[in-house]
Amino acid sequence: MNVLLVHAHYEPQSFNAALKDLAVKTLSEAGHTVQVSDLYAMQWNPVASQTDFGARSKPDYCVYALEQRHGAQNGTIASDIQSEIAKVEWSDLLILNFPIFWFSTPAILKGWIDRVFVSGLFYGGKRFYDQGGMRGKRVLVTFTIGGQPHMFGPEAIHGEIELMLRPLLRGTLAYAGFDVLPPFAAYHVPYISHEARCAILDDYRDYLGRLDTLEPLSFPRMSDFDERLHPLPCSVL
Amino acid sequence: MNVLLVHAHYEPQSFNAALKDLAVKTLSEAGHTVQVSDLYAMQWNPVASQTDFGARSKPDYCVYALEQRHGAQNGTIASDIQSEIAKVEWSDLLILNFPIFWFSTPAILKGWIDRVFVSGLFYGGKRFYDQGGMRGKRVLVTFTIGGQPHMFGPEAIHGEIELMLRPLLRGTLAYAGFDVLPPFAAYHVPYISHEARCAILDDYRDYLGRLDTLEPLSFPRMSDFDERLHPLPCSVL
Repeated sequence: MNVLLVHAHYEPQSFNAALKDLAVKTLSEAGHTVQVSDLYAMQWNPVASQTDFGARSKPDYCVYALEQRHGAQNGTIASDIQSEIAKVEWSDLLILNFPIFWFSTPAILKGWIDRVFVSGLFYGGKRFYDQGGMRGKRVLVTFTIGGQPHMFGPEAIHGEIELMLRPLLRGTLAYAGFDVLPPFAAYHVPYISHEARCAILDDYRDYLGRLDTLEPLSFPRMSDFDERLHPLPCSVL
Repeated sequence: MNVLLVHAHYEPQSFNAALKDLAVKTLSEAGHTVQVSDLYAMQWNPVASQTDFGARSKPDYCVYALEQRHGAQNGTIASDIQSEIAKVEWSDLLILNFPIFWFSTPAILKGWIDRVFVSGLFYGGKRFYDQGGMRGKRVLVTFTIGGQPHMFGPEAIHGEIELMLRPLLRGTLAYAGFDVLPPFAAYHVPYISHEARCAILDDYRDYLGRLDTLEPLSFPRMSDFDERLHPLPCSVL
């Protein structure tokens, strides 16, 4: 299996980086090939802009998604983006490894998605959700978070973590066609003991060994909607 | 009323920029004072990192939120961030004006939040949701999106737009104490006629004139949770 791990933490000594290193070691030892995009180390530019394209379809007025589509067809997307697209296309499993910032990805990772998940390749026309461009690939979201488990759940103060992560899990990854594995969460990380951190690493090693047994999360299926994406009668029941 | 409008679109001729200009004009003519942070024009750096702090509490190991807290107490936060914090503190109403990228903010705006909403000022300890640091201020999220209204709703393909925007509306803005006004959405923007765009501008002008009549969205209240943020029995009923 080819694995692309995208890592987005500013502190090389962080527990988040330890999770990254553990995944690389565990998956490599299991015989998989792992590439890492360490966004801070790469000084990744997260800002989507006109300069992401060479010859544009409309030089005087930029609609980013339309230029992505044009650029993907004509090979005129900036080389830093092309390089990341090639890694995703090569991979069977994508791992996003990051600390939660405001219940979502740090900006440097959000900008990796904004620039790399280009229209025309990752989605477009009627190709999204189970028909998305990345169908057949799996994705695992691994995150550290300051909060504690009891702060998440139907009655908890922040509600369900899957709802807080909905734009990422559903609106981005499932939308692009990935099978989204249940996320691996490391809670309360800045405030816990060395022993508690070691226990999380043990859990993660075990989790990585069981990836093939994990049932992906459930998301909309295009066959439940008509041509204009209105829900079909049976799907509303 | 003092208004801070944070604008995050790469194309100065965009419809999104027209919404920004309309808000500046309408609110100024109504007697309010408006400041604009145009993040692309400012070349805002969205990447949270060690360089955001002068003298750090732990020079050898960075936990971003803890350094934010230290920096807010000691005045050692980078000047580009300090300047934006001062604008937010000055404002009575914050407007976030942006195109939806992957059902959330473009990275440049995510990084404005990551770097500006510092621990110790915007939240911290038990100060969040209705006790958050920004209580007493209002926020309006104004966005353009490629999708159409029928794609959002309980049975629709992308579910409810408020759930897709949950980490922003609830996990960020309500969490920091803002009263969150119902968002203003401009749907299907890249694909609609000039007349349809003019109709949206008319709607937005009307909306901006009715801000004082709008009921903020509902979010958790700290009084429904105990000291350790477990839900109190009555709040579960």
